[in-house]
Amino acid sequence: MANRLDAVFSAMSDPTRRAVIERLVADGPAPVSALHAPHDMALPTFLRHLKVLEASGLVRSEKTGRVRVVHLEAAPLAEVEDWLTRQRRMWEGRLDRLEALVRKMGEEP
Amino acid sequence: MANRLDAVFSAMSDPTRRAVIERLVADGPAPVSALHAPHDMALPTFLRHLKVLEASGLVRSEKTGRVRVVHLEAAPLAEVEDWLTRQRRMWEGRLDRLEALVRKMGEEP
Repeated sequence: MANRLDAVFSAMSDPTRRAVIERLVADGPAPVSALHAPHDMALPTFLRHLKVLEASGLVRSEKTGRVRVVHLEAAPLAEVEDWLTRQRRMWEGRLDRLEALVRKMGEEP
Repeated sequence: MANRLDAVFSAMSDPTRRAVIERLVADGPAPVSALHAPHDMALPTFLRHLKVLEASGLVRSEKTGRVRVVHLEAAPLAEVEDWLTRQRRMWEGRLDRLEALVRKMGEEP
């Protein structure tokens, strides 16, 4: 699973790729041309970003006739969110324990 | 904020760096030597990982006498979690609307 988290975090470290994810999340599957349209970059550059997303498992694409349609895969996003949520809970738990300790020390006679 | 998300996602795309974050989250601030101990890599290599974490804002370090102590900064982790949670909520909202639409279509006479 380490390699998957590596690839997903790495894929999300670029603003173009995050914008593609945001678009797919908001509007559902979309053709490559529609995803490329709002980005001021050459198509081959944009296709390289799509390849990184696809290699990480965050998206998959299917050819329907002459159009390639890109779909989001929710599972890798959920894995990354789970990892972060685990860290936050552990962090909050540690702060709570520290606070309790400090309070207890204040109550000691 | 785009650059900060870029740097934080990129910093988290490596298993050694995630292990350092997990350790700081679980046990609180720690000296560089203690953070390095469980990793089977040369100290200079490990220090490069720490530098990436520090540049992203995920950790800061302070020299206390001859010991450099590393602290986690919770804010960047929270920002990344927020971005992911926004995506998941939007995704679930879209699925709910699709489901409602499908149900409504089934009810049509």
